[in-house]
Amino acid sequence: MKRSSRLIDLTIYFNNHPNVRTSLTYFSERFKAAKSSISEDLAILKKYYEQENIGQLITISGVTGGVVFIPRDSKQMIEKNLDQLIAEIHAKDRLLPGGYLYISDIIGSPHHVRTIGSALASAFQDEQIDVIMTIATKGIPIAYSIASFINVPVICVRQSLEITEGSMVTIHYESGSKNTLYSMGLSRQALKKGQRVLVIDDLLKVGGTIRGMVQMVQEFEATLAGIGVFIESSGHPRIQEDYVSLLKYNEKVREGKKPILSYGNIGKYVKN
Amino acid sequence: MKRSSRLIDLTIYFNNHPNVRTSLTYFSERFKAAKSSISEDLAILKKYYEQENIGQLITISGVTGGVVFIPRDSKQMIEKNLDQLIAEIHAKDRLLPGGYLYISDIIGSPHHVRTIGSALASAFQDEQIDVIMTIATKGIPIAYSIASFINVPVICVRQSLEITEGSMVTIHYESGSKNTLYSMGLSRQALKKGQRVLVIDDLLKVGGTIRGMVQMVQEFEATLAGIGVFIESSGHPRIQEDYVSLLKYNEKVREGKKPILSYGNIGKYVKN
Repeated sequence: MKRSSRLIDLTIYFNNHPNVRTSLTYFSERFKAAKSSISEDLAILKKYYEQENIGQLITISGVTGGVVFIPRDSKQMIEKNLDQLIAEIHAKDRLLPGGYLYISDIIGSPHHVRTIGSALASAFQDEQIDVIMTIATKGIPIAYSIASFINVPVICVRQSLEITEGSMVTIHYESGSKNTLYSMGLSRQALKKGQRVLVIDDLLKVGGTIRGMVQMVQEFEATLAGIGVFIESSGHPRIQEDYVSLLKYNEKVREGKKPILSYGNIGKYVKN
Repeated sequence: MKRSSRLIDLTIYFNNHPNVRTSLTYFSERFKAAKSSISEDLAILKKYYEQENIGQLITISGVTGGVVFIPRDSKQMIEKNLDQLIAEIHAKDRLLPGGYLYISDIIGSPHHVRTIGSALASAFQDEQIDVIMTIATKGIPIAYSIASFINVPVICVRQSLEITEGSMVTIHYESGSKNTLYSMGLSRQALKKGQRVLVIDDLLKVGGTIRGMVQMVQEFEATLAGIGVFIESSGHPRIQEDYVSLLKYNEKVREGKKPILSYGNIGKYVKN
């Protein structure tokens, strides 16, 4: 394979295999090319990723060495994408009873879901994550998008018992904003003791659902590795745990009927 | 930008913008390069996609012309991926009461979800699709994966009323396998009259849930453009509509306690 085709192939390969350490021998055999040629290809890719602020290509030397691509948006790239999201959210009336925002169209867009996932993944690339936990419904596409950049499986907590999940572990939790008791269940096979779990949801208000998922992590004797949300709604008593949010809005701060969104705390967790 | 960097950039661009017609002028300005150079880049990409059986790069001439990437797995590529899925499904005991299969770990893998979505998308690339409709929970990641290859939004039908969806249209439908009445709802804003809808779910047994979604499409005066499922379970009276399935299994055909899966009807809908 010629350099031009190798570069296309490597770009697709790294896109589909983030955080996977691959040996030069693998590429050398795949392309029937000398390792020195592959090293030159990788240098071109490394430079491109850095210039475009979309990730790092790291070379590990030694017998167990190889190369690994870590997708990582710069703070500047994330803010550019958040500006676009904010503009689209502000463009129409989204306020629902109870101070909720209608964001199903935003979450329905493959483009927005990719930029949301890419930004949140960037905040957690340096944590050791074994699995991403989320809850139906709108957390799911965000969790899968993050998973595609970190390369770990997604497990989905259910708010109803589900026959296709096999035997389930069920817990009860208090939904903070409604002061009601809910239950959630997770397949017994889904999570192993000691695994490090990233908890993801679309919206954080008081944090009842997220506290429920944290409780579920503990129930399986797994470890909480982080919490990430798309939008946090401020002006509520808040959960204790640290979390990363992309956007923030205050139900009380409105321009007419329009809520005004701003950046969440993501800036503290990513590099310039 | 040099050719090597342009090829990397174009590969990422087409990956993130399938089915989008882009003018050569756009690339020419983006790269500050002559259109003749861009044409040569595109010829290299076109050859690569065809050789690897992962899609077509189509050039449209004229004033409104440009270039469009259509991701499309060959039949051979799909069967290779299905073989891998079947092997993994056969590798452990997955049979649940009621003849259901435990596939949450398969659906939880970003890698498998990508190959499932890529295969199903290939069957529908020639249809005009405006939106993909699915239902919580396991249909969601599959629908988003397909959406990322076709480049259309996803809408998610709910089995419970949901305050964050605004006003909803609710229908009642009969779950074929249980002879019980269920309801499902969809936000009134989610779908427009006349839109062409691809209905997606993870599992097709008798087809009650899918019939429900088809009924929902009609309720909005939209048009059914196709139905796609990951696994169809045979040995049931079946829905009338055409559908595309990746895998098939018959609850009655087992090797010990293991159900034996085979290819669904996908082969009829894709090219060699």
